[in-house]
Amino acid sequence: MKKNILVIPGDGIGPEVTTWGKAALEKIAEIFGHEFTFDEALMGHAAIEVTGEPLPDETLEKARQSDAILFGAIGHAKYDNDPSLKVRPEQGLLKIRKELGLFANLRPILLFDELLQASSIKPEILRGTDILFFRELTGDVYFGEKTRSEDRNTASDLMIYHRYEVERIAHKAYQAAQQRNKRLCSVDKANVLESSRLWRETVQEIAKQYPDVETEHMFIDNAAMQLIKNPKKFDVVLTANLFGDILTDEASQIAGSMGMLASASVGESTGFFEPIHGSAHDIAGKDLANPLASILSAALMLEIGFGLKEEAKLLVDTIDQVLKDGFRTHDIADQSTNRFKVLGTAEMGKLVIK
Amino acid sequence: MKKNILVIPGDGIGPEVTTWGKAALEKIAEIFGHEFTFDEALMGHAAIEVTGEPLPDETLEKARQSDAILFGAIGHAKYDNDPSLKVRPEQGLLKIRKELGLFANLRPILLFDELLQASSIKPEILRGTDILFFRELTGDVYFGEKTRSEDRNTASDLMIYHRYEVERIAHKAYQAAQQRNKRLCSVDKANVLESSRLWRETVQEIAKQYPDVETEHMFIDNAAMQLIKNPKKFDVVLTANLFGDILTDEASQIAGSMGMLASASVGESTGFFEPIHGSAHDIAGKDLANPLASILSAALMLEIGFGLKEEAKLLVDTIDQVLKDGFRTHDIADQSTNRFKVLGTAEMGKLVIK
Ligand SMILES: CC(C)[C@H](C(=O)O)[C@@H](O)C(=O)O
Ligand SMILES: CC(C)[C@H](C(=O)O)[C@@H](O)C(=O)O
Repeated sequence: MKKNILVIPGDGIGPEVTTWGKAALEKIAEIFGHEFTFDEALMGHAAIEVTGEPLPDETLEKARQSDAILFGAIGHAKYDNDPSLKVRPEQGLLKIRKELGLFANLRPILLFDELLQASSIKPEILRGTDILFFRELTGDVYFGEKTRSEDRNTASDLMIYHRYEVERIAHKAYQAAQQRNKRLCSVDKANVLESSRLWRETVQEIAKQYPDVETEHMFIDNAAMQLIKNPKKFDVVLTANLFGDILTDEASQIAGSMGMLASASVGESTGFFEPIHGSAHDIAGKDLANPLASILSAALMLEIGFGLKEEAKLLVDTIDQVLKDGFRTHDIADQSTNRFKVLGTAEMGKLVIK
Repeated sequence: MKKNILVIPGDGIGPEVTTWGKAALEKIAEIFGHEFTFDEALMGHAAIEVTGEPLPDETLEKARQSDAILFGAIGHAKYDNDPSLKVRPEQGLLKIRKELGLFANLRPILLFDELLQASSIKPEILRGTDILFFRELTGDVYFGEKTRSEDRNTASDLMIYHRYEVERIAHKAYQAAQQRNKRLCSVDKANVLESSRLWRETVQEIAKQYPDVETEHMFIDNAAMQLIKNPKKFDVVLTANLFGDILTDEASQIAGSMGMLASASVGESTGFFEPIHGSAHDIAGKDLANPLASILSAALMLEIGFGLKEEAKLLVDTIDQVLKDGFRTHDIADQSTNRFKVLGTAEMGKLVIK
């Protein structure tokens, strides 16, 4: 198989983890005889520094021409500390999601047995958990009109949904549920929000087309609670953009660490694959980051982007083995025991590739 | 001390739990020689059934004339299943918050040692946690303009904040932090939302007036994760209305159960005290609900509403003792052992009063 892959390392720990996601793809190509060619482009703070823009035209052009994108992370402390800055790294990520029509963000909560202990949640609560989030990614308060009054004392963001936006992601989520445990939980705040009432109405309609899937509707506040109280009860979770952002980060504790979760954004064309962790400027460049989420992003690219199931499985199994052998990065090492061999980013990356 | 207290039982399990919050207040009055008089009023589905309105004028009038309000819960399955209904129970709660100017919702995460095991989170992660949430309660996407297009295919809610709304709750939160561990974490999504950028800017300004308090700003997605990863790191948490709704429900797992958490809404005049749990129609009328959150709401009324610290402490200590003696309601009983004496709502209520 021949594929053009665009690598966008981004900011903070992005470059150091993406190195290993890319290395994993190269290794897979070598083993299975595929031909993956790579190009690289700038986004976020890294792009602002060079071009003044968080998403340079050149990056968008390359993205459109690629078969899949491997992305690192975005964001920088400078902007977080100064809310008045006009040009911001995250605008690059939001724009590329919109421009490429990446309306469905899939976040599987993959639980490695070996990491059951790394979570703050009790192992007996976690064991057997297997959740697939479908987060809507190109609508909601993320993309609605923003205003700031002349005197700067009033600010607003429009939380808005169109029926077709809910429909298309609902179909994807239901289709996935049919392949899994046939349960779908749609999360909203329909007791307060009009956009959530549209969301709920629409999901109720779509549900009729999938009578084999059991549908539940849950308010976001309750969902945030149930997710840690009884994660096993969830199968496919369908959410709007903002609620999905919150719930999936929360769910990362189920997997033991944010450093273990990958996501796939798909929609109209090219797929976009990235760790769910952020740029973590505080540990950037210190060889402390966990490269496994980037390698798992590569696995998602193989599976969801290219339909290469066996190749993806090899990566996941290798990570599983490395964990079984007692190797850990800092974020997933239980400090209270010395059963584990704690590795830096590069050592862990090398080990998996080998 | 003479006080007029309005009891609004509301919907679902509201009436059966509020009975015990009220009984606790009566008992305290008897013991300490206070004169509490009680009146009752309708709100939510209960009010719609009788008057057609979720917040009848009479209820609002009584509320204005009372010194404090003890509330139960709101909501009904009928409305949750039919998003197209125009008159909805929750409108009553939102309206009374707005009308009484209850802009600050205080949600203490009170951890009873005895319940450490009832949580899905590991006891060693929880032990020592003591968080006080300040949730803004009369602004945000809850109260911004709602629209639905003619063809019903587009719906929106305006997420909006004014600087003075952020300032007044920030002051309250900082003042509380000064009396506690002098740490304040403000939660927002300033990397995406303009209203969050106003929020962050304003908190940064107010922070300068409280140099003895250490301020941290955190994105909501990260906060949802950190809260269960390392709850001990939080002291006072300051949030907007929607983010606070989500985080405090999530935090209820820290306290072992939603059935254990009370909240105080304060602002311009009369205080409003309620459990954070919802109406839980599925268990309503079955003597399964936990009355402790309503009794703890009564304790918050005594402490925050009337400044009666000793009286409040007696209620909290009594609950602590009842738990130490091995009594539990269903929600907090560990089913895997028979160390506990599991009681119904009324038995638990009676026991605490006695
Ligand atoms: C960086 C930020 C804009 C982004 C989001 O909120 O979507 C991130 O948190 C994510 O979840 O991908
Ligand atoms: C019932 C609902 C409107 C309410 C809210 O969202 O504020 C509830 O969840 C709460 O937290 O008090």
